[in-house]
Amino acid sequence: MFHAFTFLKGGRFYSSLTVKSLYEQVHHTSHDPISINGWIKSIRLLKRIAFLDLQDGTSVNPLRIVIPLTNTDEVQFLKILKTGQTLSISNATWQSTPNRKQPFELQIKNPVKSIKLVGPVSENYPLQKKYQTLRYLRSLPTLKYRTAYLSAILRLRSFVEFQFMLYFQKNHFTKVSPPILTSNDCEGAGELFQVSTNTSPTASSYFGKPTYLTVSTQLHLEILALSLSRCWTLSPCFRAEKSDTPRHLSEFWMLEVEMCFVNSVNELTSFVETTIKHIIKACIDNQQELLPKQFISSQENNASSELSINQETQQIKTRWEDLINEKWHNITYTNAIEILKKRHNEVSHFKYEPKWGQPLQTEHEKFLAGEYFKSPVFVTDYPRLCKPFYMKQNSTPDDTVGCFDLLVPGMGEIIGGSLREDDYDKLCREMKARGMNRSGELDWYVSLRKEGSAPHGGFGLGFERFISYLYGNHNIKDAIPFYRTSAESIDF
Amino acid sequence: MFHAFTFLKGGRFYSSLTVKSLYEQVHHTSHDPISINGWIKSIRLLKRIAFLDLQDGTSVNPLRIVIPLTNTDEVQFLKILKTGQTLSISNATWQSTPNRKQPFELQIKNPVKSIKLVGPVSENYPLQKKYQTLRYLRSLPTLKYRTAYLSAILRLRSFVEFQFMLYFQKNHFTKVSPPILTSNDCEGAGELFQVSTNTSPTASSYFGKPTYLTVSTQLHLEILALSLSRCWTLSPCFRAEKSDTPRHLSEFWMLEVEMCFVNSVNELTSFVETTIKHIIKACIDNQQELLPKQFISSQENNASSELSINQETQQIKTRWEDLINEKWHNITYTNAIEILKKRHNEVSHFKYEPKWGQPLQTEHEKFLAGEYFKSPVFVTDYPRLCKPFYMKQNSTPDDTVGCFDLLVPGMGEIIGGSLREDDYDKLCREMKARGMNRSGELDWYVSLRKEGSAPHGGFGLGFERFISYLYGNHNIKDAIPFYRTSAESIDF
Repeated sequence: MFHAFTFLKGGRFYSSLTVKSLYEQVHHTSHDPISINGWIKSIRLLKRIAFLDLQDGTSVNPLRIVIPLTNTDEVQFLKILKTGQTLSISNATWQSTPNRKQPFELQIKNPVKSIKLVGPVSENYPLQKKYQTLRYLRSLPTLKYRTAYLSAILRLRSFVEFQFMLYFQKNHFTKVSPPILTSNDCEGAGELFQVSTNTSPTASSYFGKPTYLTVSTQLHLEILALSLSRCWTLSPCFRAEKSDTPRHLSEFWMLEVEMCFVNSVNELTSFVETTIKHIIKACIDNQQELLPKQFISSQENNASSELSINQETQQIKTRWEDLINEKWHNITYTNAIEILKKRHNEVSHFKYEPKWGQPLQTEHEKFLAGEYFKSPVFVTDYPRLCKPFYMKQNSTPDDTVGCFDLLVPGMGEIIGGSLREDDYDKLCREMKARGMNRSGELDWYVSLRKEGSAPHGGFGLGFERFISYLYGNHNIKDAIPFYRTSAESIDF
Repeated sequence: MFHAFTFLKGGRFYSSLTVKSLYEQVHHTSHDPISINGWIKSIRLLKRIAFLDLQDGTSVNPLRIVIPLTNTDEVQFLKILKTGQTLSISNATWQSTPNRKQPFELQIKNPVKSIKLVGPVSENYPLQKKYQTLRYLRSLPTLKYRTAYLSAILRLRSFVEFQFMLYFQKNHFTKVSPPILTSNDCEGAGELFQVSTNTSPTASSYFGKPTYLTVSTQLHLEILALSLSRCWTLSPCFRAEKSDTPRHLSEFWMLEVEMCFVNSVNELTSFVETTIKHIIKACIDNQQELLPKQFISSQENNASSELSINQETQQIKTRWEDLINEKWHNITYTNAIEILKKRHNEVSHFKYEPKWGQPLQTEHEKFLAGEYFKSPVFVTDYPRLCKPFYMKQNSTPDDTVGCFDLLVPGMGEIIGGSLREDDYDKLCREMKARGMNRSGELDWYVSLRKEGSAPHGGFGLGFERFISYLYGNHNIKDAIPFYRTSAESIDF
């Protein structure tokens, strides 16, 4: 007998099989009849046999069901079936097929009795068996995750989150849930969502102060790191900026890590490299269940050809292998500017001239990772004024802070981190110079440097960017189930 | 040599030891000198020896460090040390102490050289070595998690989340991240937070429609379940209600599960019982690292006596054991009303008279779980009008829906779930009768019943309530790092 659940056999327990469970038990064949539910991916009737591919969203692989046809009733019955319908199937038998594309198939003898149509579809059900563009699929928010390509992103995201969880748990990090609602307005950065109640229309009437949605949980994480030594979170963050690019969302999830007793940026970048490589290694080890056999072209408006399907799968695997096999580069911001200047002067390449003291533009980041190093690269020690107030000031070189950005080919920055200034006086001076904390609203933060402080640092990883990068999908809208951007209304 | 990280040995990797790693390696003693960082929990100087207890938040156990005193310099140096300071310790040696309370201790020979004071504390550092009330600790949001009692809740929460992750992963559930921002206003329930931008003060100017913070991700989860068969999330949810009780938060995390191909409430309750028992079993198996040796009395204003400390630890263990060993009760709402009526008529017990058709009050729930059954109890099949529009109508008994609440002693309801109405016509009729979907704003939801629908259901678990319940702490404010309630302002 097949078991969908590991922990309790039989009984009244919810125990319907999944397609994934059948694939997991390829080597435990049995002669018990199998019941399974799912959606029709495709159905093909030949003269004496029908092929039904069933999917249930738990596996990247569909389930092949073979139905020998023995009379016209059966043919008539099967002709009603079409893509998208929900079926409940019973009395199927297992057939090992080691020489075919799929390692096994199910066979049904009496389809009229064994196949129950549970959920019909409308005449114009939009997900027919053909390639659709991502742009078209995005217009179908309630149905798009029934496609192999997009459901695979969700499973990859879930898998990656699981791997992070395992990794941090083993390394003594406590997962924490810092607040989403905060009165910390990031000093008027101008890109915040403000919260009020529908019964009390003024923003301050519920919580006593203007309340915002968090843009980063870091300041709160520092409190927790100074209690727990090591903590991490995966929390929604919000930016009200108007950027509508394939790299920006108004609501996104950020994996943030904060840890005590780190004394150098190199310790941070080593930790990041080890961590990310560990996650990618797990993806490689599980690529069979993570990568779909069918790919939609990343060319947004073209349907994929068969050629590009194989190419894309291969590209992803190669990228993953390269990522864990090579040593990632590590340069200072000052080095980066030199490289960019040289390039700029030789071929007048960039829209924005690279200049020490200015932030790196996306075009600069993409050049460094995508063209110059052709690999992930840590850029460290940015000018103090390019970065937030809380970063630890370097003793040398002058006027830089102990920080890093991780740039990756194609995507640009996906991780940013730093040591935090733990010198009370330096922190106060820096905040004063920036006109911050005038009414003492950050006194709680500064006070941490007075009571059992410790050298500490951390980083934030844009989770959708990371998932998109891993999957080779270059629009992070596809890496979150329901995306929110400034350019589109929220319909539900 | 001791390794704090499992995955990479030595090198430039961030690899400082944790107290937890020392406890994990009790049976791998070595003569290498040990370096470790942490905060002073207590220090005691005797004539020829000093005892230093160090904590670093990774373990429920402090680290005992023994320092033989050989000269007055050492005594003078150690006299400066006090509770709360951050230390960096090097050149400590391992001593197995199988006959003492702790299985090992570290010894330091030359404290002046081996102990570095990294972070001082102010004169009035509030966490001295004495028992504090929870009410007092809540007034110290930046420091309170340095106490053994409250840091243990955070580690328990992290552990429980980890166990859920393992469990759902093994059972083919995809973890998903449904949106926090939504235009779904739950039909004017009047308890929503509304979102605007600080640059565009009208609520609709950014996303085109009034936008709210989600109160439950269920409707979105149904979309995903109808693609993935099984999904779950742990997401922040928001209620702007004014209730300020030990059971309510304005911002809380909800674990929500949605799964296809369930046909009865019993399948749901069996799944819930199996799941929760599995999690509690994992807690029992790891109780040594989860439960602190010191407990704060749940009597909010009294400091604990030594007696109550042991009692509370024992109570928790007993509760956990009882929970997994007994079969949880399962009664219908109609049965529950009969039980409550009998009680009410016999001893005129309740403030609210129990009456078929009325919701169960907290006093009713607490009586059923806490006094009548003295165990968790599922109450199923509530009257249709006591519950939301989306619950599946029972064919019998009349006018009830296929749903359940899980009530637990002391806490009342911690889980609510149901089958979802998958009959298109019934769902439309119900919504019309309730005056819903007048402008078609829920057409997307109804349309799911037209396109490859499936029988499905799910449930939501208030995560802070569950953690509080497990820990025997009866105020969920302590189960989330920074609580938000209607009664208190958000200071940061």
